[in-house]
Amino acid sequence: MQLLEERIRKDGIVKEGNVLKVDSFLNHQMDIRLFEEIGREFKRRFRDEEITKILTIEASGIGIACIAAQSFHVPVVFAKKTKTKNIAGDVYVSRVESYTHGRIYEIIVSKDFLKQEDRVLLIDDFLANGKALEGLADLVHQAGADLVGAGVVIEKGFQPGGEIIRSKGIRLESLAIVDAMDEKTGEIRFRDQEN
Amino acid sequence: MQLLEERIRKDGIVKEGNVLKVDSFLNHQMDIRLFEEIGREFKRRFRDEEITKILTIEASGIGIACIAAQSFHVPVVFAKKTKTKNIAGDVYVSRVESYTHGRIYEIIVSKDFLKQEDRVLLIDDFLANGKALEGLADLVHQAGADLVGAGVVIEKGFQPGGEIIRSKGIRLESLAIVDAMDEKTGEIRFRDQEN
Repeated sequence: MQLLEERIRKDGIVKEGNVLKVDSFLNHQMDIRLFEEIGREFKRRFRDEEITKILTIEASGIGIACIAAQSFHVPVVFAKKTKTKNIAGDVYVSRVESYTHGRIYEIIVSKDFLKQEDRVLLIDDFLANGKALEGLADLVHQAGADLVGAGVVIEKGFQPGGEIIRSKGIRLESLAIVDAMDEKTGEIRFRDQEN
Repeated sequence: MQLLEERIRKDGIVKEGNVLKVDSFLNHQMDIRLFEEIGREFKRRFRDEEITKILTIEASGIGIACIAAQSFHVPVVFAKKTKTKNIAGDVYVSRVESYTHGRIYEIIVSKDFLKQEDRVLLIDDFLANGKALEGLADLVHQAGADLVGAGVVIEKGFQPGGEIIRSKGIRLESLAIVDAMDEKTGEIRFRDQEN
């Protein structure tokens, strides 16, 4: 997605340790006009699919998922990272290893909001090691629902997540795939994608 | 906001301990069509105000803030509840006491995304004890920005948050104010609001 790649080149910051900071427009401050374009692009790529629900994970996936949902005309469910008192009743649980935070956490979703008859699209902002998407896919599997695919805004193509998700037969649409970054020059190389 | 009150009456569940579960449409599963109506109502109430940024807090405020931002044509910034490796540089920090989780946590926002020239609207899904809104207002104050007001979807009128926020001179617009709930009958009484 050219508009997105241009924005990443303009406002993304390459930091030590393969960190790509895009927090001025994607995951701390959020450019809602850009999100609308992102949502429409997800819809274009999944236009032939019947989708009944979007599933994302707190926190930075929520904004993109909500705006994308306007193109799909479906509700959004977000998986929660910790069990709170306000989630009562039965939940599906999956364990996710976070490299960013260096810990393992549980993600949960109420059984009321993922049903066997659902056709689910996963949405997230970043794909690096793929653990969050694997956890979300596991929740969909536990519910007996159909997993239509996954849409991520930025895939770090030099980390294993994309390969892991695709090798499971999950249709993955990444709007920008970063194949290499150079923290010294700030250069970012994107994978060519034909759509 | 009548549409919202009707939805709370229809799908909200009153639980022991003054808990109002609205997770089928507001803060776990999210009804994006309803969020669009909520966003337009916030815009109607703050139509005379110049606003440059919406500030919310992860996680359940983000979806509403993003959809509301479409009516205000401004970016959204969400305060994060824990410091992660990906937030580099200077941040504003405030401490928030959570009754739901029974702990104190820090909320942070990058100094890059709250500026002295900003005119900030706070958005959140729930107002009970007011601690989250107080923390967000504190972040705005630290930045030297103007706090235009706060918009919340549901205020629990029988808890002290609304009174605390209003007594600080902050303009607070709550789209539904629950003055009493009965867990035995499921009855919910809303405060009359003239708009």
